[in-house]
Amino acid sequence: MLQFELKKKENNARRGTLHTAHGDIQTPTFMPVGTCATVKGMLPENVASTGAEIILGNTYHLMLRPTAERVARLGGLHKFMNWPKPILTDSGGFQVMSLSKIRKITEDGCTFQSHLDGSKHHLTPERSIEIQHLLDSNITMVLDECMPYPSEKKDVKKSMERSMRWAQRSKDAFTDRDGYGIFGIVQGGVFPDLRKQSCEALTDIGFDGYAVGGLAVGEGQKLMFETLDVTTPLLPENKPRYLMGVGRPSDIVGSVARGIDMFDCVMPTRSGRNALAFTREGTVNLRNACHMDDLSPLDSQCSCPACTKYSRAYLHHLFKAGEMLGAILLTWHNIQYYEDLMKEIRLSLEESRFEDFANAFFEKNAGLKRPL
Amino acid sequence: MLQFELKKKENNARRGTLHTAHGDIQTPTFMPVGTCATVKGMLPENVASTGAEIILGNTYHLMLRPTAERVARLGGLHKFMNWPKPILTDSGGFQVMSLSKIRKITEDGCTFQSHLDGSKHHLTPERSIEIQHLLDSNITMVLDECMPYPSEKKDVKKSMERSMRWAQRSKDAFTDRDGYGIFGIVQGGVFPDLRKQSCEALTDIGFDGYAVGGLAVGEGQKLMFETLDVTTPLLPENKPRYLMGVGRPSDIVGSVARGIDMFDCVMPTRSGRNALAFTREGTVNLRNACHMDDLSPLDSQCSCPACTKYSRAYLHHLFKAGEMLGAILLTWHNIQYYEDLMKEIRLSLEESRFEDFANAFFEKNAGLKRPL
Repeated sequence: MLQFELKKKENNARRGTLHTAHGDIQTPTFMPVGTCATVKGMLPENVASTGAEIILGNTYHLMLRPTAERVARLGGLHKFMNWPKPILTDSGGFQVMSLSKIRKITEDGCTFQSHLDGSKHHLTPERSIEIQHLLDSNITMVLDECMPYPSEKKDVKKSMERSMRWAQRSKDAFTDRDGYGIFGIVQGGVFPDLRKQSCEALTDIGFDGYAVGGLAVGEGQKLMFETLDVTTPLLPENKPRYLMGVGRPSDIVGSVARGIDMFDCVMPTRSGRNALAFTREGTVNLRNACHMDDLSPLDSQCSCPACTKYSRAYLHHLFKAGEMLGAILLTWHNIQYYEDLMKEIRLSLEESRFEDFANAFFEKNAGLKRPL
Repeated sequence: MLQFELKKKENNARRGTLHTAHGDIQTPTFMPVGTCATVKGMLPENVASTGAEIILGNTYHLMLRPTAERVARLGGLHKFMNWPKPILTDSGGFQVMSLSKIRKITEDGCTFQSHLDGSKHHLTPERSIEIQHLLDSNITMVLDECMPYPSEKKDVKKSMERSMRWAQRSKDAFTDRDGYGIFGIVQGGVFPDLRKQSCEALTDIGFDGYAVGGLAVGEGQKLMFETLDVTTPLLPENKPRYLMGVGRPSDIVGSVARGIDMFDCVMPTRSGRNALAFTREGTVNLRNACHMDDLSPLDSQCSCPACTKYSRAYLHHLFKAGEMLGAILLTWHNIQYYEDLMKEIRLSLEESRFEDFANAFFEKNAGLKRPL
């Protein structure tokens, strides 16, 4: 059971607090991705120093290595990776479909081959919930199937309906505990009637929170926002809503405006490893030769070490020389940027000026301009 | 001009303080290697937190990228890499010979091709000193030639004699400033008479410190110690002595016993990136499956984050999963181990019990047992 306090609303945007056994999460929140029991290139205390209050772990990766049973024997994921704050785990379904060689999906679950060693595994809703329990995840996700975009409506419908049956089985398999919860996942692609059907199925079952899945798979920001517009109003107001795998800063601002409370994305970490920085003046590629002699900071308004202690020239040098410190510093910066953005969003909600903030944000990020 | 205070002696072992424009260095000292303007995988403040008071930068790498002139324009190496403490730079000679395609060595200097892009460069004693000046190095090394082991005595002699002429040219090219100095480098392979000749040539010129070069190139610990035994007594007592590129912990303890004050080596950093840890109980390879379920710390007496916040099982997992954090944590640990060792050496010297410490150290590290 997870307690969620909805503290304030501004149109559809929400400011809340989610209470877990490992601490509170102020929403809207962004969860850095810690796929293999580490946010790549960062010490957990540095992740926390950015303001991050919850991270995401990947069931698919962890079930293969070091295995859920081993993590449980070693005291759970929080202790294993020295992250005492809340953890959300996905169900493994998305990575089974994107990373592994799938052998078969049936009503029972999916059979796949590990991308690591080719070993054969079977993942059912019940096993996914068991794994997440063994990991000691604060927020467990139901096993679902995520359809590619574009897909035929009849295929999306069939898949969504099976995912709803899996959601029921996931809920049934979940052991409820104080400060732990399970989220359902709305599917249905970009089809409003299927999304509606999915919302109804999930709310009938009843979850601690509701995720919107199957977006950010190539449909584009406009269609994503339109899908949210017809989805979030159908979800219970007193439960947190999580948009999975999203996204760019403008995606986040626009989705908060549409009533989303939680986000995760590999973008800040993966971009950081690839010399791409998010800044208040837009994205910056530090490999570009224009930074070679630039003594100015990456982002003069940012408090992270990359911005306060080094020049763009030095960061450029690190990436040109293939030095690990480049990835370390830029990952840190990008997470700081995302967490600062969430903090600004929360503050503007508290001060009832989120709409102004969001409009100014889209105005400034001209290339990303989209109707709110 | 560098001031060196020799504070205490125990037989040939020495406890001192070297004063530089960027702070004091307590000797015996170990210098972590920061080849390309970064100690690989570490933030400089974390390097400092281990007790390191000086790092080494590589002239060869920095002259090629980002170039010495660029570092100078950007405010010098300390500012560029955010390391406000002392820096020693090598002359570039060793890497020219080990990494680049040498085109020609003449009396004037050496012509070589960059290992990065094949571009042609000419390095003379004068240019090496100029580069180190541009980098703002506190301790400049003379350009020398380092002979492979084994080499014919006549070749070692010829090379050493040229290195001594280069040492004079290096000294002549050096701009003396308060808190900055230049070290000569003793060459002569494993031949006592050549080492003697080299020591005499260098002390005739007069340097702020004296390095012993051309060791740890395959001759083995016994021959290295024997060479030190006939070299350090010939060096001025009131100047620091630096054993270049050394070494294993036992090499360091044995060399301190032979009157060496300063060390550098890639071993802690390179080993760290390769899952090999130095601990008070010997070396540990964290890739080994025996660590898979081991909840114990890497080294229970170590204060670094790898040892205080994580289990061997987690460190093993990071290396198996190819996660950057494994290299980050183990590099940190290994530097902490080396700096702790130096601290123990200094303390035992202050308390006039270094010989006991050294004997106990060799006793404990059984596989490394060598006559002191």
